[in-house]
Amino acid sequence: MTDPILLTPGPLTTRIETRRAMLRDWGSRDPAFIALTAELRGRLLALARGEATHGCVPLQGSGTFIVEATLATLLRPGDRLLVLANGAYGERIAAIARRMGRQVEVLRWPEDQPVEPRRVAEALDADHGLTHVALVHCETTTGLLNPLAEVAAVVGRAGRHLLLDAMSSFGAIDIDLGAVPLAAVMASSNKCLEGVPGIGFALIERSLLAASEGMSPSISLDLHAQWRGLEKDGQWRFTPPVQVVAALVEALRLLEAEGGPPARLERYRGNCRILLAGMRRLGFELYLDEALQAPIIATFRMPETRPLAFAAFYDALAARGFLIYPGKLTQAETFRIGCIGAINGNDIERLLAAVEAVLGGMTVT
Amino acid sequence: MTDPILLTPGPLTTRIETRRAMLRDWGSRDPAFIALTAELRGRLLALARGEATHGCVPLQGSGTFIVEATLATLLRPGDRLLVLANGAYGERIAAIARRMGRQVEVLRWPEDQPVEPRRVAEALDADHGLTHVALVHCETTTGLLNPLAEVAAVVGRAGRHLLLDAMSSFGAIDIDLGAVPLAAVMASSNKCLEGVPGIGFALIERSLLAASEGMSPSISLDLHAQWRGLEKDGQWRFTPPVQVVAALVEALRLLEAEGGPPARLERYRGNCRILLAGMRRLGFELYLDEALQAPIIATFRMPETRPLAFAAFYDALAARGFLIYPGKLTQAETFRIGCIGAINGNDIERLLAAVEAVLGGMTVT
Repeated sequence: MTDPILLTPGPLTTRIETRRAMLRDWGSRDPAFIALTAELRGRLLALARGEATHGCVPLQGSGTFIVEATLATLLRPGDRLLVLANGAYGERIAAIARRMGRQVEVLRWPEDQPVEPRRVAEALDADHGLTHVALVHCETTTGLLNPLAEVAAVVGRAGRHLLLDAMSSFGAIDIDLGAVPLAAVMASSNKCLEGVPGIGFALIERSLLAASEGMSPSISLDLHAQWRGLEKDGQWRFTPPVQVVAALVEALRLLEAEGGPPARLERYRGNCRILLAGMRRLGFELYLDEALQAPIIATFRMPETRPLAFAAFYDALAARGFLIYPGKLTQAETFRIGCIGAINGNDIERLLAAVEAVLGGMTVT
Repeated sequence: MTDPILLTPGPLTTRIETRRAMLRDWGSRDPAFIALTAELRGRLLALARGEATHGCVPLQGSGTFIVEATLATLLRPGDRLLVLANGAYGERIAAIARRMGRQVEVLRWPEDQPVEPRRVAEALDADHGLTHVALVHCETTTGLLNPLAEVAAVVGRAGRHLLLDAMSSFGAIDIDLGAVPLAAVMASSNKCLEGVPGIGFALIERSLLAASEGMSPSISLDLHAQWRGLEKDGQWRFTPPVQVVAALVEALRLLEAEGGPPARLERYRGNCRILLAGMRRLGFELYLDEALQAPIIATFRMPETRPLAFAAFYDALAARGFLIYPGKLTQAETFRIGCIGAINGNDIERLLAAVEAVLGGMTVT
């Protein structure tokens, strides 16, 4: 059986070399694995040019775990977080912080509109009690890219800490910690880095990490303790998913061999260009204004003249070897197709042929 | 290069079939993966005969994550937890509950002594505000097996909830939810089940799960929400480590093929018997009274007449392909050797030959 092509926000199609890196057993406290962890942390920091300023703290779990751990470690009871939300992942940040008892304000935009730096500046001006700001770089809900540099400049000028959820952008869309002031960047193994799922990581200003001892209400999600442990003897505090780590290190080596994030972004842009043109030709309208669309995942409206049942559409494409993704919007009937992972333009062309074949054979619901 | 043999409390040596199950990419919301998750949950419940009473909730992360998640989900602000501690993992349960702001009492025994049901009964009699009791089944600190049935009977008679950390026993040492009253059993993928690390799971009484909505101060570690999601559509709330799940399902199929937990326990007992006899012959004293020793991991004292530096001893054995484990005791100079994982008596015999060769070549420190 051939593996399906995953056209989702992750887990993604990975390269076989990445998966083969999981065929070995590792002792998690052995020097060989300690060296692997050091390579992992060094490569992740270097991708964002944060070696001089930030610490890299990997953590077991999904992207949500590293987001929660970063909030748990950096937000103190008296702090107040401003979440900039134009999709489900912004809302999730607010929900996580609220559940752990932290004070949260949410500044909202419609799901098809980017965060506006001007409104962020006004909010920070109007309320000096806001200490931290959280932004989702690429909102996977729609595939919209928020204006990171502009928001970071506003937050930096106001002297607040910006926490960036870079889950679905890190490794493809440039994040330069030397140029853009960011207290923390959070991402995971299984998106643009093209590893397998199982760990997330945060790049956090070292001065903030050092000052956060004992702050987290959760021991599992305490990134200060995780960082101290790694700095002390190179070991994870609690059993790491050794095979997932090995796969991510292999994926990072492959990323370097590909030419780094710029080359990867070019490949994803090519995938996205072919996808958008082809889907338009087949009668599907892009949900976002194309100028706001990141080449990560695209949201399409179900054609009003040809409303397909998503489940049947999904199944028919799955039978042809392509897994697409449901929509996450409440106001519009949509579905999503990812452009990321170890796929190229040929895979997208084959997908488009499959969509065309499926459309030809489907009755309107 | 041949993989080393891991003689640790995990990650362990796994079977190549288990690791090969990670060579596939899975869509985490695809029916194929939903079926895999259902098989996982069903097999885990069946191993402890909890199908009629308990729900199985897998969670991303290490064993510590599932312990914390279980406490976060089941302990309410007014509850009080009694931790029965005779090692580092009991102490960790207390630290986790304290950090999340829950009320904790600790009843302690020396690290070489089992928990005494009589003292537990007295403590519960004396303090009716204690609502939950936590016990570590096999204390990996030493390898000691605590008397589960007796403690469970005492806690059950007193009408309190018993939470069992079965991290390093589940899958080998029998746990029968039909016979032993347990509110929750927590374990992980990478110990006696012989999967790879990356997920833990809890088997929790369904009535308790149903009554714990919104209780967890952590969204990532909320087992009520995780359970509701799985029951609703079979999907994990947040990206699961799909390859780790696939490996664990394969490992569970292999466990069944081996003859289930009784057959596995017999193999581990054989490993342990050979290990203990051989190490004794080579001059190493077992830290525990042999009657208290579980066939999971054994702690040996460094011989007083021949005190080896652990690092040099470790390196010399590692060079011969065997990874052992440091001690975790403060009062005695010890090291540990595991009996679990996809290893058999021949592997232990080869280890003993390596220990003998290393001893012959080592100078006394």
